[in-house]
Formats: sequence, C-alpha cells, structure tokens
Amino acid sequence: MQPAAGRWFPPHQSGDPMTLSMYSMTVPFYSSMLSNLEHLLSKAEAWAAERKIDPAVLLNDRLAPDMLPLKRQVQLVTDHAKGAVARLGGVEVPPFPDVEETFAELHDRIARVRDFLHSVPEANFAGAEDKIISMKVGPMDMSFPGLQYLQGFSVPNFYFHLTAAYAILRHNGVPVGKGDFFGRG
Amino acid sequence: MQPAAGRWFPPHQSGDPMTLSMYSMTVPFYSSMLSNLEHLLSKAEAWAAERKIDPAVLLNDRLAPDMLPLKRQVQLVTDHAKGAVARLGGVEVPPFPDVEETFAELHDRIARVRDFLHSVPEANFAGAEDKIISMKVGPMDMSFPGLQYLQGFSVPNFYFHLTAAYAILRHNGVPVGKGDFFGRG
Repeated sequence: MQPAAGRWFPPHQSGDPMTLSMYSMTVPFYSSMLSNLEHLLSKAEAWAAERKIDPAVLLNDRLAPDMLPLKRQVQLVTDHAKGAVARLGGVEVPPFPDVEETFAELHDRIARVRDFLHSVPEANFAGAEDKIISMKVGPMDMSFPGLQYLQGFSVPNFYFHLTAAYAILRHNGVPVGKGDFFGRG
Repeated sequence: MQPAAGRWFPPHQSGDPMTLSMYSMTVPFYSSMLSNLEHLLSKAEAWAAERKIDPAVLLNDRLAPDMLPLKRQVQLVTDHAKGAVARLGGVEVPPFPDVEETFAELHDRIARVRDFLHSVPEANFAGAEDKIISMKVGPMDMSFPGLQYLQGFSVPNFYFHLTAAYAILRHNGVPVGKGDFFGRG
C-alpha cells in the first residue's frame, strides 16, 4: 500500500510498509539518524569555519560543568548504536577507542559505525526480542530481554546523547533546527 | 527465562521476555519514561523550593532564544506519547490544550496522558506496523507506515523533547543525572 504522492517521508526510508522485527526496528533507524548527526556536524563545522571559531571550542563545549562535551556525546551516540546492533545481532561489540578530537575524526567514526551496522546479517536478529542481553555499565551489571534492552535502554540512550549534541550546538548559536535533527535543511 | 538474581532491571519492567508487537514497543516504554519525567520534575520543584527560586524561572527557561522553554518541552513529550498510542491504537488523539504554567499542572497533564496510554486496548495495535499514519505537522503533510512513524518519528521526537527538558534542568544546576533520566536516584 502506497501513500498519496507528494507527501513527505523521511528521506532515508521508502514509504513501503516494514515488517516488524528486531532488525527493522534497529539498523535502518540508527543508520539514518547517524546520517543526520553527520549533517548536523557538517553544518556546525562550516559555521565555525565561516566565523573563524576554533572547532575545538565547539567540540569541547558542554551544557553544564559535569556534563560531557560535544565530542564525547558523539562518541556515545555511536557506541549505543553499535552496541545494540552487535548484541542483538549476536556478534562482538567492536571496540572503538575514544580518541577523536576533530570534526573529521568524528565523521570517520560515524562512517565506520554505519558500515558496521550494515555488516551484521539481518537473519542474526531472529528471536532477539527475548534473548537475554547482559552487560556492565560502569560498576553495574545489567540484564534485559532484547526488546527491553533495545526500546528501554539503547534507544533512550542513543537519543539522549544525540539530543545533547544537538543542544550543545543550539546553545552555541549554530544555525540548526529540528529539521536538521531529522536530516533535512 | 530469568536472569541471575541481583542484576539491575529498569524498575518499571519485569525481567520477563516480551512479545514483539507495536503495543509492547510503545505503551510500556512511554509510560515508564513519563514516570521518569515526573521524577525529574519533582526533583526540580523541590530544589527550587529549597533555594527559594521562583518555579516559573525554571519552567520558562530555554537553552537558546529560539528554542522552546521547559514547560513546552514537557507538553511536547506528552503529545508525542499520546499521539503515537492514539494513532497506532486507532482512536482519536485526545486534544490537550497547552495551558500548564506550574509544576503541579504539568504533573497533572503527565498523569492524564499515562491514564490515556493504558486505556487503549492492546488488541487495537494488531497489524499497526504497516498501517499508514497520516498527519499534519505544521504546514507539512506526513505519511508513514506505522513502524516508521513510531521508530523514525514518534520515538525520536519523544526523546528529543524529554532530553531537552532534562538539559534545561541540568543547565540550571538542578542536581539530576543520567540515573534520574532513567527514574533512579
């Protein structure tokens, strides 16, 4: 069933109905939102260049003294995407050391994570909704059935850090808006 | 299958495996995250009272002059939750006028939305993943298959506004952290 012509769809997705599966809930959305993050970072970088602002000022800014700076927010967005896809897809979580200090390095990390997301076979996700996912978060042992891990932990964390990154840009006056958060503009 | 004793689960969810459905992806998570928002607002309110800060200062604060203030972020979090559950559950979206000006009124709105979420019968969500959802967002007509509407529009918007609310509190020095975002602490 196709919707009426001329209506807006998120550009990263066709209008085709999707089958409900742990794969379809995960890889397409994380991948497209990571593209949107690249779009936001590209706009921030161009804006800084135009105004002769040292990119490091943006990359190290934070909203409160005990919150994480932009570069760490970006690293964590990618960590939650690759962590979920690896754990639900039954492969090792690829370790990515947190060494990025420039926009170019963050772009490279995002691209590597998107490549990883698309490298895990869809068939691996069969039944992942009730597979028990166990992990250490700081000092805490956590276990969740797969659906709860995805929708109650991974997705909230992913958007938490993505929105924190966006909010740091907005608070600095970078000319981005909600449309950019969704990859438009 | 039960996980080992002593492990941490989000308090709002049992450790039981969940069936993958549009209902199980939606109502339990929106409901529990709305509880977490109430927890965040309660801490903010208590902190303001203790320091003799007018609650309206927090409720009208924003991270950038052209971003929305805390009270509107809270209204929008609830709008995205009730919008998704109504549309996917095949009932009218209940209109809630945006009139709240106090913490007590915001708490009341959140409670009414949680009641609404739990009022929509689970059976209504059968097949909602490929039902076409059409809506107007500002001047734009949007249409999505249900899964794409939920995971690519409603969920990102819900967490966008929830995190924006959290970020406004953090930026004002309200003593909340990531644990509070997940309802602990």
